[in-house]
Amino acid sequence: MPDGRGPRRAQEIFTATLELLTELGYDGLTVEGVAARSGVNKTTLYRWWPSKDALLGAALLDARIFELSIPDTGSLRGDLESLLRQVNRLLTGAKTGAIASAALSAALHRPELATVLGAFFGDRLSQELPIFDRARARGELPDGTDPRLLMDLLGGALWMRALIRQEAPKPAFVREIVDVVLRGAAVA
Amino acid sequence: MPDGRGPRRAQEIFTATLELLTELGYDGLTVEGVAARSGVNKTTLYRWWPSKDALLGAALLDARIFELSIPDTGSLRGDLESLLRQVNRLLTGAKTGAIASAALSAALHRPELATVLGAFFGDRLSQELPIFDRARARGELPDGTDPRLLMDLLGGALWMRALIRQEAPKPAFVREIVDVVLRGAAVA
Repeated sequence: MPDGRGPRRAQEIFTATLELLTELGYDGLTVEGVAARSGVNKTTLYRWWPSKDALLGAALLDARIFELSIPDTGSLRGDLESLLRQVNRLLTGAKTGAIASAALSAALHRPELATVLGAFFGDRLSQELPIFDRARARGELPDGTDPRLLMDLLGGALWMRALIRQEAPKPAFVREIVDVVLRGAAVA
Repeated sequence: MPDGRGPRRAQEIFTATLELLTELGYDGLTVEGVAARSGVNKTTLYRWWPSKDALLGAALLDARIFELSIPDTGSLRGDLESLLRQVNRLLTGAKTGAIASAALSAALHRPELATVLGAFFGDRLSQELPIFDRARARGELPDGTDPRLLMDLLGGALWMRALIRQEAPKPAFVREIVDVVLRGAAVA
């Protein structure tokens, strides 16, 4: 990892961690199991991450599988639709959706992991802020707009429908929620 | 239960089920444990619910602890704010929040329970529909408005902030999300 937050084969380790979480659930996940699946020595894993929760937290925060490409389409609507289509694909993809589901389940089950969720979404939001800065500069949003409020509405609607209601949102759903939120936010 | 969906002491059984889910997690929950906690014979429980998942599903769907009082304040804004303040209290209350968290965790962990989540939110929505019918009758919403889309935005924002970001939404948050969504929905 370029920033030194893990050993050389960090991505393989994170993949093994998230796969085992999905297959076995939180209670079935062990550092020993990750060592066996990834082929990385158990003592190496413990050197970087002193516990299963630390390893799982790092996997959730740093796994490339959850990376978003932050769009710059020239309009707030274009940027939000592109971003939310990516989130929708992550939540509904066979593999990534199962991981997202298992990760949320584990984080809700273990208070020790709750801070990881907070850090994950905080990190996401800071990546997304330029979208809102550019929109304000173009006059598409009033100055006082709170990006977190808008992303809680938009991201929340996707998580709600995809993971909580367990229905894969159709592509039109992304457009419809962006319609409502952009109209609502623009007239502030 | 008046509708005959359970034995006489159903609410005590559901309370014991949800308490044990919260204390022990899904894997620690057993029909035997519910029998011991509720003082209801194990064979009685199995007569009504053939499995742990069936019992947990019934508890999530029919526990009075999650009941909402559907408001009729005379305005869509008043109704939505009242409804969402109740949801916020459920999600952030010490006991109800822990149950909601454990229930969502369990449902995400067990595909067998996913349909329970769908049924739970479907039932909620059908209770909420009169709010939107009255709003259309008063001319507060265009005819084509989809209540589910609006509730996914509003409920999703609360679940996102309270359970996923793990921050208790302040009372102002409810007003702010209703502001954005009502402005966005009214100008359709």
